[in-house]
Amino acid sequence: MSDVSGFLIPAGFRFAATRAGLKASGRPDFALIVAETLTGEGASAAALFTANRVTAAPLQVDKEHLKATGGRVRVVAINAGNANCAAGQAGLDAAYATCAAAAVEFGCRPEEVFPSSTGIIGVPLPADKLIAALPAVKAGLGAESDHFQEVARAILTTDLVEKTAFLRMEIGGKEVRIAALGKGSGMIHPRLLPVETPAALHATMLVYILTDAEVEPAVLQEILNEAVEVTFNRISVDGDTSTNDTVLLLASGTSGVKIPAGYVPFSEAVKSVARSLAKQIVADGEGVRHVVELRVNGAATDAEAVTVAKAIAHSPLVKTAWAGSDPNWGRLMAAIGNSGAQIDPERVDIWFGELRICRDGGRAAEMDVAAAHAYLKQPEFSITLELHQGDGSCVFWTTDLTAEYVRINADYST
Amino acid sequence: MSDVSGFLIPAGFRFAATRAGLKASGRPDFALIVAETLTGEGASAAALFTANRVTAAPLQVDKEHLKATGGRVRVVAINAGNANCAAGQAGLDAAYATCAAAAVEFGCRPEEVFPSSTGIIGVPLPADKLIAALPAVKAGLGAESDHFQEVARAILTTDLVEKTAFLRMEIGGKEVRIAALGKGSGMIHPRLLPVETPAALHATMLVYILTDAEVEPAVLQEILNEAVEVTFNRISVDGDTSTNDTVLLLASGTSGVKIPAGYVPFSEAVKSVARSLAKQIVADGEGVRHVVELRVNGAATDAEAVTVAKAIAHSPLVKTAWAGSDPNWGRLMAAIGNSGAQIDPERVDIWFGELRICRDGGRAAEMDVAAAHAYLKQPEFSITLELHQGDGSCVFWTTDLTAEYVRINADYST
Repeated sequence: MSDVSGFLIPAGFRFAATRAGLKASGRPDFALIVAETLTGEGASAAALFTANRVTAAPLQVDKEHLKATGGRVRVVAINAGNANCAAGQAGLDAAYATCAAAAVEFGCRPEEVFPSSTGIIGVPLPADKLIAALPAVKAGLGAESDHFQEVARAILTTDLVEKTAFLRMEIGGKEVRIAALGKGSGMIHPRLLPVETPAALHATMLVYILTDAEVEPAVLQEILNEAVEVTFNRISVDGDTSTNDTVLLLASGTSGVKIPAGYVPFSEAVKSVARSLAKQIVADGEGVRHVVELRVNGAATDAEAVTVAKAIAHSPLVKTAWAGSDPNWGRLMAAIGNSGAQIDPERVDIWFGELRICRDGGRAAEMDVAAAHAYLKQPEFSITLELHQGDGSCVFWTTDLTAEYVRINADYST
Repeated sequence: MSDVSGFLIPAGFRFAATRAGLKASGRPDFALIVAETLTGEGASAAALFTANRVTAAPLQVDKEHLKATGGRVRVVAINAGNANCAAGQAGLDAAYATCAAAAVEFGCRPEEVFPSSTGIIGVPLPADKLIAALPAVKAGLGAESDHFQEVARAILTTDLVEKTAFLRMEIGGKEVRIAALGKGSGMIHPRLLPVETPAALHATMLVYILTDAEVEPAVLQEILNEAVEVTFNRISVDGDTSTNDTVLLLASGTSGVKIPAGYVPFSEAVKSVARSLAKQIVADGEGVRHVVELRVNGAATDAEAVTVAKAIAHSPLVKTAWAGSDPNWGRLMAAIGNSGAQIDPERVDIWFGELRICRDGGRAAEMDVAAAHAYLKQPEFSITLELHQGDGSCVFWTTDLTAEYVRINADYST
């Protein structure tokens, strides 16, 4: 899904980015996605936000705006270099001011603007820099893949590479396109909830999925909820859930293909694009040298399977062992036992790829340490657990924990 | 409490250690504590064990034995270099065989032997090596501080220093002594429960607290439960709860001072020794360069205060910031929000020592980045939170996460 061509960008959107002066590096740090539908109203929108109880100002504004418009977005305004979080009323004021200025620039209501921020927490966002940069971004807008990539690049923070995914499908003889861009490298353990959910979830993962299909906001939200649950909510780099995580799905309707509720091929297509982006985020995790696919089978329930996967994904001892390609499966057993999920230690089976490691909670007779070590030297590998408790299962993507991760994060704000 | 003299060792115990050949380094790895009470029966005993659902074989045996004896222990047999965990029936057999051999050596029942193990998980324990070493350990037994220190040294794994604490008190004109020794450096996040608790808690923390006071097992258990809750259950190095964590409190009664239920000065003395040892374990945590005392105030309940402290103590982003002495308090806010505890982000106040950092969820006007950075350069510092939700509070001890921690753990078993 990394082959980029102009044909892959959904119609009805324009893109641009510029330097607003937030990133110390002086790189582009302010991007816009502008929806231009046939009717002139905003794109149909659905979104999920972090469950962290400390939530960044732009997310609070996004929730208000989506409610006010009934799920319509004209302009997505994304800055990197400052999370606009834990900045009190000044933070909210900065977000509102940016929306108001963008609304004037694009002739829409402020409520049709969807702000996003990523970067350091606790430092007031200089909205004046974003506002001053608006005309420059507007002048650069375009619908080509280069424009799309510009946005994908500008929103990065500690990320090393842009993350994009593209998919085309035919529905009723017409082409529908889905394209996604996102960022995320540290503070990656998204726990995303729809706006209405009373509970609330921080580094930040920002994801924007765009399509030219025509989908009602309520239907779009259902599709997004279902996709996020098995993709972005099933990844973790460091177990720290951001204050700013946001996934936004916009449908311009420009293709003229209307997607009815329950239309599975489209839902699966969105899921597929989301899964690609989720895995790219894990692969570009801070300091990551090994990407691990955890397959948990035989849990009492799917939720319990996820609980076990997260306990493994969040164990520093398991993750450091992976960094060293160390087949220390005892640490896996300890993490499984700590998960709180229903298990019987004597019935746990573990495989590294196709290599049998543990049978009935003990070292498998055929376990070959050298082969296991060699397997874990690969940049990507899988670990499968069979718990023998029920039919619950999940697939979860996570990473090792390296000395490089520590270096990156021990010297961030200063 | 580090001043060691012969006068500090409680009467009624003898100590020795030897090389059984479990540690690759060839250092002493097998130790005994033998209780020699005036009546000839075992010492009165109370214990708590890990809540990890994967529990090492010796802990299963300890629980059976304490039940069988009603809380009496003659011989504590501790090996380092192998955790005897996730080794199935072979693991249990190894533990039973060691107990049986020790019972023959010391003329007691196997049920009066209390085995402990620490080291790698998933590798069968060679009990024959321990059994062969028994006569050598027995020959070396002595009641002097040198003997006590030998045991404290033999049980170490990745620890850099021995951990001991001593206290003397006068009760009714007579002297009572309490001495403790312990190990623990990685896989430190004890969640300890009494034997009867149905739920179950892994690296390993092993702690032995000895006294010559006379205390009934039931009273001893009450005293230990209360002490552990605010000491060992309030520390974390890496958030990984071991399969082997054990705290054992033995009372020889040799002083002739009987402690009745509810006698506060003795409970406080045990708590004080436990707190000293708990803080020593944190300070010797793997790769640790900063020890952090977290003081959480104004939580809805004490339990919620602990929940907030653990969320902070287990955030890789907070811990790596500490490694770099980085005053990135936004990461603290994110961790507080992730805790799941009842909070109002707009009412959170944060101090580094006496330095005001955050007021009402935003950067404090008087915050001085240079002063904050300098404060966090100290090897030990404190962070105080005020949540304004209620009267709940706690003190919790934790550490930074350094590149050295990763190096230590990325190359352990291989």
